[in-house]
Amino acid sequence: MRNDMKKIVYADNAATTKLDLDAFEAMKPYFLEEYGNASQPYSFSRTARRAIKEARKIIASCINAKPEEIFFTSGGTESDNWAIKGSAFSDVYMRTIITSAIEHHAVLNACKSLARLRYPVEYLSPKNDGVITPEILSDIITDETRLVSVMLANNEIGTIQPIRALAELAHSHGALFHTDAVQCLGHIPIDVKELGVDMLSASAHKFNGPKGVGFLYIKEGTHIVPYSDGGAQEFGLRAGTENVAGIVGMSIALKKNCEQIVTNTKHLEKLEKILITNLDVAGIDYIRNGSTTHVPGNISLSFRGGDGEAILHRLDLMAICVSTGSACDSVNTQISHVLQAIGLDENYARGTIRISFGKDNSVEDAHKIVQALLKILK
Amino acid sequence: MRNDMKKIVYADNAATTKLDLDAFEAMKPYFLEEYGNASQPYSFSRTARRAIKEARKIIASCINAKPEEIFFTSGGTESDNWAIKGSAFSDVYMRTIITSAIEHHAVLNACKSLARLRYPVEYLSPKNDGVITPEILSDIITDETRLVSVMLANNEIGTIQPIRALAELAHSHGALFHTDAVQCLGHIPIDVKELGVDMLSASAHKFNGPKGVGFLYIKEGTHIVPYSDGGAQEFGLRAGTENVAGIVGMSIALKKNCEQIVTNTKHLEKLEKILITNLDVAGIDYIRNGSTTHVPGNISLSFRGGDGEAILHRLDLMAICVSTGSACDSVNTQISHVLQAIGLDENYARGTIRISFGKDNSVEDAHKIVQALLKILK
Repeated sequence: MRNDMKKIVYADNAATTKLDLDAFEAMKPYFLEEYGNASQPYSFSRTARRAIKEARKIIASCINAKPEEIFFTSGGTESDNWAIKGSAFSDVYMRTIITSAIEHHAVLNACKSLARLRYPVEYLSPKNDGVITPEILSDIITDETRLVSVMLANNEIGTIQPIRALAELAHSHGALFHTDAVQCLGHIPIDVKELGVDMLSASAHKFNGPKGVGFLYIKEGTHIVPYSDGGAQEFGLRAGTENVAGIVGMSIALKKNCEQIVTNTKHLEKLEKILITNLDVAGIDYIRNGSTTHVPGNISLSFRGGDGEAILHRLDLMAICVSTGSACDSVNTQISHVLQAIGLDENYARGTIRISFGKDNSVEDAHKIVQALLKILK
Repeated sequence: MRNDMKKIVYADNAATTKLDLDAFEAMKPYFLEEYGNASQPYSFSRTARRAIKEARKIIASCINAKPEEIFFTSGGTESDNWAIKGSAFSDVYMRTIITSAIEHHAVLNACKSLARLRYPVEYLSPKNDGVITPEILSDIITDETRLVSVMLANNEIGTIQPIRALAELAHSHGALFHTDAVQCLGHIPIDVKELGVDMLSASAHKFNGPKGVGFLYIKEGTHIVPYSDGGAQEFGLRAGTENVAGIVGMSIALKKNCEQIVTNTKHLEKLEKILITNLDVAGIDYIRNGSTTHVPGNISLSFRGGDGEAILHRLDLMAICVSTGSACDSVNTQISHVLQAIGLDENYARGTIRISFGKDNSVEDAHKIVQALLKILK
C-alpha cells in the first residue's frame, strides 16, 4: 500500500468508486480455481455457469426485473452504445432517435455515429436545473420516433429526470425508451417496472463493483439487435466469453449498495449539508447546479470568477480528489456541454467543480474539503 | 478450493486458460488500493494511468507494434466487431468485405450484421486442411474491396494461415487487412510488421490473462471509426472507463507467455506426439483435422462413426475436459461450420473432439487422455 493512502480524501465517487471488499473476495475463486469457460458443457464449468446465473438473479432482483432481462456487458459505455445502436440497426425504416443535450458522451457520441450513418437524431434542451420535462419531449416526439434516450441522473450535476412520465410519453408514440442509469444505480432506489423503461444501462464501478463490467436491462419483447456479434452467450444477444469474476463482483457490490441506500443517503445528505452550510456561512459567491432532486452526495458548485481546473489542482495538492466535469471530459478544458445546456452564466461556469461523496466518506472529509475550499477561494 | 480440483485434466485451453498467478498478483493493487479512474487528472490516479501506459508498452513490444497502436477492449469479440464494423462504417462507399468461411463467429456474425445493413460481404472457402491460399483470395478480391479479414489461426482445427501473403494481396488492391489472432497470440511468435496486417485482434483469457479484456492492434494511419463511442479514452478511439486491473493482468500474462513460446511449443509438441502415436498404435480409425502448420497443442480429431458429444461427456465423467467444436458452439449439436467448410466426410465429422493442451498440462495428462479415449472408442 502507498504511504500516502490514509491521507487522501477521495470525493470523486461519481467518476469511480472503491471496489467493495466482499465483492473482491467473491471474485477471487473465479480468477484462481473456477477458471472454466462458462459456456462449455463439462462439469468443471458448472460452478462458473451457476455463479453467472446467481449474479443475474441478484441483479434482476435489485431493479425488479426478470433474470433473463439482464444482459452482461463490459460497462456503461457498451450498454449505452448497444441500447442506441441496437435500436437503430433493428429498424429498417431508420426512424428518429431523440436524446437530451446533457447525456453522457457514451449516448451523445453513439447518436453522432448514427447521424453519420444518416439516422435522424434530435436533441432535447433541459430547463436551468437540468430537468427534461414531458412538455419538452412532447414538442419534438412524433409517431416516427424510434427511440427516446434520457438519462436517469446526470453525471455532472446529479439531476434526476422524471423518467416514468417521459417513458409513458414515448410509448404513447410507439417509441422505445432507454435510460442511462450509470450514475445512480446503487445510489437511489430503481424499479424498472415502475419507471416503465424498455432499456436501462449500468456500470459496476460506479457502485463499488469492478471496472470493465456492466449490464443492459432489456425488457422482455423489446426489439433490438446484438451489438457485439459472435457466440451464443447472453441468450444469443451479447457475444463474448463471460467475465465471470467481474459479473460476480458486480452482483455482490450492487446487492450491498442497494441494501444500504437508506442509510447511505442519510449519511450523504449530512455531508452535503456540512459543505453547503459552511460555504454559505463564509459568504462564498457560488451556484449549486442541478435540481433539488439529485443523486445523494453529488454536489456541482460553480464559483463566481473561479477557475475549476485551478481549484481542482490546488485541492489535489492538499490530497483531495474532486472533478471539474465528468471524468471523460478531463482532457477538455472548455465549459462542459452540460453546463452550456443548462445556460449557466459563464462567470460562474468556468469555476465549476464536482464533489461527489461516497459511502466511505466521513464527516471529517466534508469539513476538510470545505476548509480547503475556503483557503483557496478567500 | 474444490476437492476434485487435483483430479481434473484440463485440455480445453483453446476455450480458455488458467489465469497466470503473477498476472493475478499484478492485478490486485488495482482492485484494492489504486482504484482511481485512470482518466482523472489528480495525483491519486497517476499510478493507474502509469500502469496502463506500461501495459500498453509491454503488449506492443510482444508483437513489434508501437504502444499507440494498441487499443484496449473487452476481449476478442469486441476487437473483431470493431475491426470489421469500424472499417465498414468509416467507408462512405460501403465497399465489399471479404472474410473466410471458417472464421470465428465474432467475425462471421459481425459480417452478417453488416450484410443486413446492406454492406456486401463475400466468403473465402478454404482447402481441405483449412488453408486460405492467396490464389483463393485473388479469385474474389477487386479494387472495390474495403477489408479482408482472415484469422491467423483457426480455433477449431488450429490451422495457421499465410497471413503475410494474403495481406500483401489485399494491400495491392487498396483494401485493409484484419486478422483475428485470438487463438494464437502468446502461443506462436507474432510480429505485426512482418505479417503486414492493419489490424489484429486478441483476447487475454486465451493466453493465461483474465477474462473480459483484450486489445485491437490498429496500425498507425489506418482509417477506422470507433466502435464504442463516448469518452476520450484510448486516444479517442475506444470509450469507457479503463479496466486497469484487467489491462495490467493481460500484459503480464502475455509477456510471460511470449517469453516461454519456444519452451512451451517443444513441450506441447511432445504431448501431441504421445496422443497421436498411441492412437495410431491402437489402430483407431480417425482423421486429424487442419494443416501441419497449426497452433501448438491444438489437436482436432474426427473418429469414424463416433459421436463427439458422447465422447466429450464420457471424458467429462473421467474428469477430462475437452471440447467438441469451439466454445461458442457448445449449444449447437450440428457439424460445425469449420468442419463443413473443409469438406470433412460426415462419417468422421460427427465424431469430432478438440483436445487443446496448455503449458500446464503434463505428460501424464496426455497419457490419461489417450487411455480414456481408447477405453471409449474400443
